[in-house]
Amino acid sequence: MHDLSRLSLNQKTTDPWNLREAVEGCVRAGIPFIGLWREKVAEQGLQESARIVRDSGLRVSSLCRGGWFAGSSARERQERLDDNRRAIEEAATLGTEVLVLVCGPAADGDLVAARAYVEECIEKLIPDAEQHGIRLGIEPLHPMYAGDRSVIVSLQQANQIASRLNHKQVGVVIDAYHIWWEPDIYAQIAAAGERILGFHVCDWLVPTPDMLNGRGMMGDGVIELRRLRTAVEQAGYTGPIEVEIFNQQLWSMPGDEILQLMCERYLEHV
Amino acid sequence: MHDLSRLSLNQKTTDPWNLREAVEGCVRAGIPFIGLWREKVAEQGLQESARIVRDSGLRVSSLCRGGWFAGSSARERQERLDDNRRAIEEAATLGTEVLVLVCGPAADGDLVAARAYVEECIEKLIPDAEQHGIRLGIEPLHPMYAGDRSVIVSLQQANQIASRLNHKQVGVVIDAYHIWWEPDIYAQIAAAGERILGFHVCDWLVPTPDMLNGRGMMGDGVIELRRLRTAVEQAGYTGPIEVEIFNQQLWSMPGDEILQLMCERYLEHV
Repeated sequence: MHDLSRLSLNQKTTDPWNLREAVEGCVRAGIPFIGLWREKVAEQGLQESARIVRDSGLRVSSLCRGGWFAGSSARERQERLDDNRRAIEEAATLGTEVLVLVCGPAADGDLVAARAYVEECIEKLIPDAEQHGIRLGIEPLHPMYAGDRSVIVSLQQANQIASRLNHKQVGVVIDAYHIWWEPDIYAQIAAAGERILGFHVCDWLVPTPDMLNGRGMMGDGVIELRRLRTAVEQAGYTGPIEVEIFNQQLWSMPGDEILQLMCERYLEHV
Repeated sequence: MHDLSRLSLNQKTTDPWNLREAVEGCVRAGIPFIGLWREKVAEQGLQESARIVRDSGLRVSSLCRGGWFAGSSARERQERLDDNRRAIEEAATLGTEVLVLVCGPAADGDLVAARAYVEECIEKLIPDAEQHGIRLGIEPLHPMYAGDRSVIVSLQQANQIASRLNHKQVGVVIDAYHIWWEPDIYAQIAAAGERILGFHVCDWLVPTPDMLNGRGMMGDGVIELRRLRTAVEQAGYTGPIEVEIFNQQLWSMPGDEILQLMCERYLEHV
């Protein structure tokens, strides 16, 4: 894999750019895919965003994000489900097949109940996903986010949920940053197989400067990215590879320089 | 459990205190156990530390820590094994039955090899442990330390290692902070059963102010401590419960106040 044909810019990597700037940057850099974020789509307008991307010739690898199901009242929980249905429609409008689900924290500290509720919600969304031709990608987040961002914390767990739901609209998104530590990660990647709907990369810095915005450029950390990419390919995934980096320092660089560095490091380390 | 009969002060919770001060503090507070750290024992002198503890009437719940096996040369790896043998002897001298193993990071980024090497080292230490009547407690650390402190990151993984080694000298130490996020934690606690050699508690703060020294006093965070303690008891563990809190802010309080708060919160939340 010595070309950029599978590379995708996850918009978060160039956070200071709006959607139009990110699309134009990708075109200049020869990056064929882009991973969009709903907040940036909303800022540009949904139809306008769809048009900008379509006109550019870029393909949309995924839309971030659905999920975040928990709520402290029945009304809030219903609003969250409705919002997920809107996210599915947005994904379809934007021309991607994958909606990434970040499943949120527990509303009341009960992790067991929160996890069961996530599964229940994903199941409820399947008919909507099917209707719009969207696949729901359960993205486990690193366990350090178990208290505030995601009760789904390992590929093993995401695989179990996807396996129980057992529907072609439901799969997993593997982000190297979130799962590289898993003791049986290679077995889990193999088990995920054709349920893999996305592969995200960045690096784990030692020390990690910030729990949210301290993620590293590929090659600057300790993750065995090529080994993981090879495993993901052997499991059957040959789709786009998104570079998603939350890093305050990176965001202070001009966007075109971020993309140039990202392309170099992708070719060298992924 | 409405008394302090199983409570242990892990010395790290009162980090500014030396060993003698911590022992005297426990006696004043009516705390019957103490968990010692090798660096603090060394500072006071091994024999002197053993004498201080013996004279106080306290029992030693565990010694922290062996482990940290990886090295970048054969010589360094041998030194680390030798150091673990010394730690076993120190544990015996101090009158505890448990040496806590924090297994260290990979020397070269290869997690798979590093994990196999940890298992190999623990196996090598079994005869020494047996000779001195010490049980080796594999303590999984939170996955956010996978890059710099421990390649053993879940109770599931520690259980698998202990189960493969299958020797009465080898067990696991369960620290709520490190394993509370595990999707199947209650099944893993049950599976650990009589291999549970220790139970440590503190709390997970949201947000976490520091990845190392940002741990919380029980009740200040999101961990379901009582539920975990009940599960650990149901699995058969009725030994001491160590409060181990790495927290810079806590360490600025007078030691006796830390112990008072710790006793209150232990009774209320654990």
